[in-house]
Amino acid sequence: MTALPLVKALLFDVFGTLVDWRTSIATDLRAFGDERGIACDWYAFVDAWRGAYVPSMDRVRRGTLPWQNLDALHAASFDELATRFALPPVSFEDRTWIVRRWHELAPWPEVPSAMARLHASYVTGSLSNGNVGLLVDLARFARLRFDTVFSAELFRHYKPDPDVYLGAVALLGCEPGNVMLVAAHNADLRAAQALGLRAAFVARPTEYGPSQEKDLAPDGDYDVAVRDLTELADRLGAGA
Amino acid sequence: MTALPLVKALLFDVFGTLVDWRTSIATDLRAFGDERGIACDWYAFVDAWRGAYVPSMDRVRRGTLPWQNLDALHAASFDELATRFALPPVSFEDRTWIVRRWHELAPWPEVPSAMARLHASYVTGSLSNGNVGLLVDLARFARLRFDTVFSAELFRHYKPDPDVYLGAVALLGCEPGNVMLVAAHNADLRAAQALGLRAAFVARPTEYGPSQEKDLAPDGDYDVAVRDLTELADRLGAGA
Repeated sequence: MTALPLVKALLFDVFGTLVDWRTSIATDLRAFGDERGIACDWYAFVDAWRGAYVPSMDRVRRGTLPWQNLDALHAASFDELATRFALPPVSFEDRTWIVRRWHELAPWPEVPSAMARLHASYVTGSLSNGNVGLLVDLARFARLRFDTVFSAELFRHYKPDPDVYLGAVALLGCEPGNVMLVAAHNADLRAAQALGLRAAFVARPTEYGPSQEKDLAPDGDYDVAVRDLTELADRLGAGA
Repeated sequence: MTALPLVKALLFDVFGTLVDWRTSIATDLRAFGDERGIACDWYAFVDAWRGAYVPSMDRVRRGTLPWQNLDALHAASFDELATRFALPPVSFEDRTWIVRRWHELAPWPEVPSAMARLHASYVTGSLSNGNVGLLVDLARFARLRFDTVFSAELFRHYKPDPDVYLGAVALLGCEPGNVMLVAAHNADLRAAQALGLRAAFVARPTEYGPSQEKDLAPDGDYDVAVRDLTELADRLGAGA
């Protein structure tokens, strides 16, 4: 057991860390395509959709785009990709349903039970670039046990801008050293650590599919590095 | 069962509606006084402390005071009352503990089980003038089943300013008519209703003690009026 007596709250990155967006979206889009008779390499489509995520947020972060929440960015990047992948026109209702797939992503298998354990011993929250409504829906769908949702949308800044990490810490009435970010992404953890937060790396070696090349292992000096949240709960002495 | 098919989210007022602040604080302060040998009419003290709540928020709402969260307002009004009630000086640690009593208030008896039922069928959140850290602590202590915490602190406005109600609705990605405020206070419900939200009155006839005179009954045309949250869950057809 790792002795971290000062940690009061665990804040979780969500996409990739808690939920398997790639399999979930590809499965849903394949079912949609089958029903509508639309052929497409849906794994390539979802990889491109997720690939548009950082550049689209960076346009907001640099001020090229005014503030938009992630639902809006997902909708805009879907439209671009529909053209690039030469999809036939989709109805407004279908487009709404497709963009909403990001609200209903399956958790990695151990997540619901391990989060229940962690919640028994620590304040828990999201710390995600997803918008509040998306995160609320996703937490209900995937049984993510949050005391509250912290979202980029509350601060009108996307991670890794410091405002997001420090904004959540301040709202909790904590010091940075009382809060641990749990994430599968080194860049996120490094940003948090640079601001004084604690950092826990969780390995998600298939988040980006079978040939994932990045974030396979921790590349920083984090407080904890684990293979899943069950190990995190064990290491932090959480719950029963 | 009341047919309200458009309601997706229930937002709860907290102090008085979900938790019995008066009994909780008076009990804790009496124990503190007994331990420290301080005699005081602790019910009168807590009534005066709660009485300072609206005026102190109004100073923020009118701009006489800069933004301060409820923990800060509670601390300032405690200091004033300690003088008025002629308490002996208290240490910094004792003062911190006393102000923190607002983070650990007992729920009305039916609340934890009824909120679990409501949470099974509806998105749930707070809509409170308490600060985020206070509400997170209180939800854990009193087993209030929120998907997320909406607090005046997120909007830097206190209820009944419209920014609080409409801010929460917007963050949920809803229209006002999809969101119902659940509260024991007519003024809160009227403010929500004027903005298009649905309104559910819950009777808490002893919130202010045995001689309570206000908010004994609904005085508006609300969507629902109930004697407690169990009846609300029954009326909304919630959970099992």
